[in-house]
Amino acid sequence: MPTFKLTVAYDGTGFVGWQRQAAGTSIQGLLEDVMTELAGTPTPVTGAGRTDAGVHARGQVAAVHLEREIDAQTLVRAANAHLPAAVRVIDAEVVPESFHARFDATAKTYCYRIWNADVLSPFERPYVWHLPGPALDRDAMRTAAALLEGRHDFAAFQGTGSDALSTERRIFASRVDGDAHDGALVEYAIAGDGFLRYMVRNIVGALVEVGRGRRPPAWIGEVLASRDRSQGGRTAPAAGLFLVRVEYGAYNHGLPRRTPHVA
Amino acid sequence: MPTFKLTVAYDGTGFVGWQRQAAGTSIQGLLEDVMTELAGTPTPVTGAGRTDAGVHARGQVAAVHLEREIDAQTLVRAANAHLPAAVRVIDAEVVPESFHARFDATAKTYCYRIWNADVLSPFERPYVWHLPGPALDRDAMRTAAALLEGRHDFAAFQGTGSDALSTERRIFASRVDGDAHDGALVEYAIAGDGFLRYMVRNIVGALVEVGRGRRPPAWIGEVLASRDRSQGGRTAPAAGLFLVRVEYGAYNHGLPRRTPHVA
Repeated sequence: MPTFKLTVAYDGTGFVGWQRQAAGTSIQGLLEDVMTELAGTPTPVTGAGRTDAGVHARGQVAAVHLEREIDAQTLVRAANAHLPAAVRVIDAEVVPESFHARFDATAKTYCYRIWNADVLSPFERPYVWHLPGPALDRDAMRTAAALLEGRHDFAAFQGTGSDALSTERRIFASRVDGDAHDGALVEYAIAGDGFLRYMVRNIVGALVEVGRGRRPPAWIGEVLASRDRSQGGRTAPAAGLFLVRVEYGAYNHGLPRRTPHVA
Repeated sequence: MPTFKLTVAYDGTGFVGWQRQAAGTSIQGLLEDVMTELAGTPTPVTGAGRTDAGVHARGQVAAVHLEREIDAQTLVRAANAHLPAAVRVIDAEVVPESFHARFDATAKTYCYRIWNADVLSPFERPYVWHLPGPALDRDAMRTAAALLEGRHDFAAFQGTGSDALSTERRIFASRVDGDAHDGALVEYAIAGDGFLRYMVRNIVGALVEVGRGRRPPAWIGEVLASRDRSQGGRTAPAAGLFLVRVEYGAYNHGLPRRTPHVA
């Protein structure tokens, strides 16, 4: 009986997040319901990471072992026929039964999108953090973002209530882009071997402090060194965050050149 | 008392279209309600063109004469504070009272977006025509699209029930692009001095016949020459269509290089 690695895209708006909850609709719950239906027996689905409520994914990865012979193409079609349009299985691939979506992951890439103009495009509403007012200093943000690359203790950027054993993570790349859309869109991309809860959104909150000129770029390094969450900025809202890609094996993709929310 | 030229963007999903109707929410109706509220007296708003139900706009233009002194910036802010987030006034400019949004328009540019892949991105759902199955022949579509440039009688691409006095229009540019998004997205852009009802969607319906290989590119010329709507293809759905820009004066912008649905 086959085990599949699924690549899943979803518009997180209105969902309670990846993980199945007591109340509300989760992506994991939707996938488990569909796979259970297909297999005729309760079928768990394991994700590479738990995206929070309202966070989007272009390339979440999940593993599922099906008690039924089925080929990958048929699985994709059958799953998408049952899932709501906001959730799509974009690929399925047979993998060894030992494959673990979460523990085997070696790199994840996230993007965060900020709309930095007074008028918010109606097409961007659910996919950005809207920051009207003066233009963010992208050069300062870029300098600050680069300070996060390498292996560091990211305790200062971890949300409260986490249970991670270690708060050390290795960041392969951390970069601010923002020339598209007449300067309205500021895009942050970060790739690392793992992320703590709210880590990307807390980093973005701090980068925005720098972009607004309230703190110098070097302040990000001070926050990092403090290992103290209370030193950082606010947590950026969920809507701007996209899980772009999960990798297994050596990290080699680099950051996406641009981060369209269309996949 | 000032007259304003408003540039308006909207996500047309769920609206009955630009024009005020007996039932349902229209963009014109929303704008008239807001302007009436601001002016304290019934205030009509005239659009450059009537987009149909479900059609989007990145740069619709409207004219409004306000019986109240107000500067452009304040007007933009006040309007957006009252409008739903799906409709945004992105610019306001004082113009002579004689300005007419519709009759003075010299060029309009539309884009039409097709998602040509089996799995539809959850982020593109309301902004494309989803055509799964074999890849469309973009070269054939490009050749066919070019045949529409110039001054022609477009009666064959006019929807029934129109009351246009003349069905002649001049098309400045008509082009198919489609390299972005791993080939999933096929984008059609057309600029002309005016458009008949359903004209762009009917043209796209015919281009898709060519893209599917059911007709050769030259067939588009035959349909055009027939002046007979029954010779053409189906009408493409509203969701893929965007009014990108309305111009006053000489046409000189050319087509957008890409047609992101974000503005």
